[in-house]
Amino acid sequence: MRTRTACVAIALLLLQSAAAERAFAQASEDPEGRLRALGLTLPSSNNAPAGNYVSAVRTGNLIYLATHGECGTPLRGKVGAGVSVDSAYASARRVGLCMLGTLKAELGDLRRVVRIVRVTGMVNSAPDFTDQPKVINGCSDLLVAVFGDKGRHARGVLGVASMADGRSVGIEMIVEVRD
Amino acid sequence: MRTRTACVAIALLLLQSAAAERAFAQASEDPEGRLRALGLTLPSSNNAPAGNYVSAVRTGNLIYLATHGECGTPLRGKVGAGVSVDSAYASARRVGLCMLGTLKAELGDLRRVVRIVRVTGMVNSAPDFTDQPKVINGCSDLLVAVFGDKGRHARGVLGVASMADGRSVGIEMIVEVRD
Amino acid sequence: MRTRTACVAIALLLLQSAAAERAFAQASEDPEGRLRALGLTLPSSNNAPAGNYVSAVRTGNLIYLATHGECGTPLRGKVGAGVSVDSAYASARRVGLCMLGTLKAELGDLRRVVRIVRVTGMVNSAPDFTDQPKVINGCSDLLVAVFGDKGRHARGVLGVASMADGRSVGIEMIVEVRD
Repeated sequence: MRTRTACVAIALLLLQSAAAERAFAQASEDPEGRLRALGLTLPSSNNAPAGNYVSAVRTGNLIYLATHGECGTPLRGKVGAGVSVDSAYASARRVGLCMLGTLKAELGDLRRVVRIVRVTGMVNSAPDFTDQPKVINGCSDLLVAVFGDKGRHARGVLGVASMADGRSVGIEMIVEVRD
Repeated sequence: MRTRTACVAIALLLLQSAAAERAFAQASEDPEGRLRALGLTLPSSNNAPAGNYVSAVRTGNLIYLATHGECGTPLRGKVGAGVSVDSAYASARRVGLCMLGTLKAELGDLRRVVRIVRVTGMVNSAPDFTDQPKVINGCSDLLVAVFGDKGRHARGVLGVASMADGRSVGIEMIVEVRD
Repeated sequence: MRTRTACVAIALLLLQSAAAERAFAQASEDPEGRLRALGLTLPSSNNAPAGNYVSAVRTGNLIYLATHGECGTPLRGKVGAGVSVDSAYASARRVGLCMLGTLKAELGDLRRVVRIVRVTGMVNSAPDFTDQPKVINGCSDLLVAVFGDKGRHARGVLGVASMADGRSVGIEMIVEVRD
């Protein structure tokens, strides 16, 4: 009797595991499913431009996103002088999420993303700060988590001496899309 | 008699107004007409590159402009430390005009502009200066005045600690064009 | 007799010169031949990305290279404060060579380069340093030496206050290619 109970338990576990795997496989092909699996919600509105420009422009099958900050109140201050790498990493992740909100508004469905081509990250840096790549990984890690290999991008990282609105992180990207 | 004179005067005014409106409508479809209406003249020569490079490269239907300064003697110095936002705004506008001169030399006719895709503006900034967007609006406002909706671009703005030649503003752009 | 010897010598010199010219003409159509003629060897491995990204992404016929440093141990420090323009120029040249190594790994053959479209160079700068163009010429001069007119690019140069890993120079580029 014990053997039978154990067998049933194992079978149930296997079934559950298969269902989880199937759900994951489906989610893994759907960036928005992956976002949900990560417990993330896309910001419903775009990052309001701080000047006479727009958040995104499409030319051919490329979308150029304007430099984004966080969608909400941003982290402010210089990394390496009051702002830690960890909190700046978290800010870069939120900037990435904000860019995905703009992309969703442009595309309707994030499955239309063919490739994240290029990411340029700016880090408001203390003069002796040299760990900018660790900060922008907050955005890059999110993009790879959401898009898988399609999320792997060429990247540039800049240590800047001052940033609009005093924020710590600003990021832009170029995305190849399909209709 | 007075009534007749008044009627003729009103008719003449209406005709004049209609002609002005027609002229404006034509100008509004022609970026170079708009420039004239703004009292602006395109610089006749390109911004001489300060190194082993060229002012513009076309690939497919995109033109990449090199980072431009003003066509003449540029405003120099750090914004927020001796240079005001207003004078830097005016400098950014002149840099925009200089880029349009390069674009005219490339295209022959600015009506070939399909869309200003992307503008990146660099502001030579004091460490605590955070109004970079207001400066680069000098260029963005000009582009929208000249090209209308085609002039609305994705934008990035950088606060840099030092700039070639000590100038206050440098701007580059990517433009979609047609033959 | 002296005349005959002289004639033979001159004839031999002319033949040698013609052969050298032919070799050069062939090399001049082959970027990798030009590199050899310059005594340069392409780095065999890519610049290892310092974060969650890749060294190059192709979209359509454009390749976006991530910001590269030197392939080996980079020159570090701020130009204009301890680092000279000449040594930074040499560093920019080595960064250019490193990018060509990445490009070779992507393309298999550098003859597939149609045009170097855009180069963006970052110079880790002392606040009062304004000769960034002279530094990035180290890369631009190499590109023109290797690719000729196809190597002439639109360019942007940034003076930044701090750079990843403390290096003096970082450069990225966009390259039009064919199959």
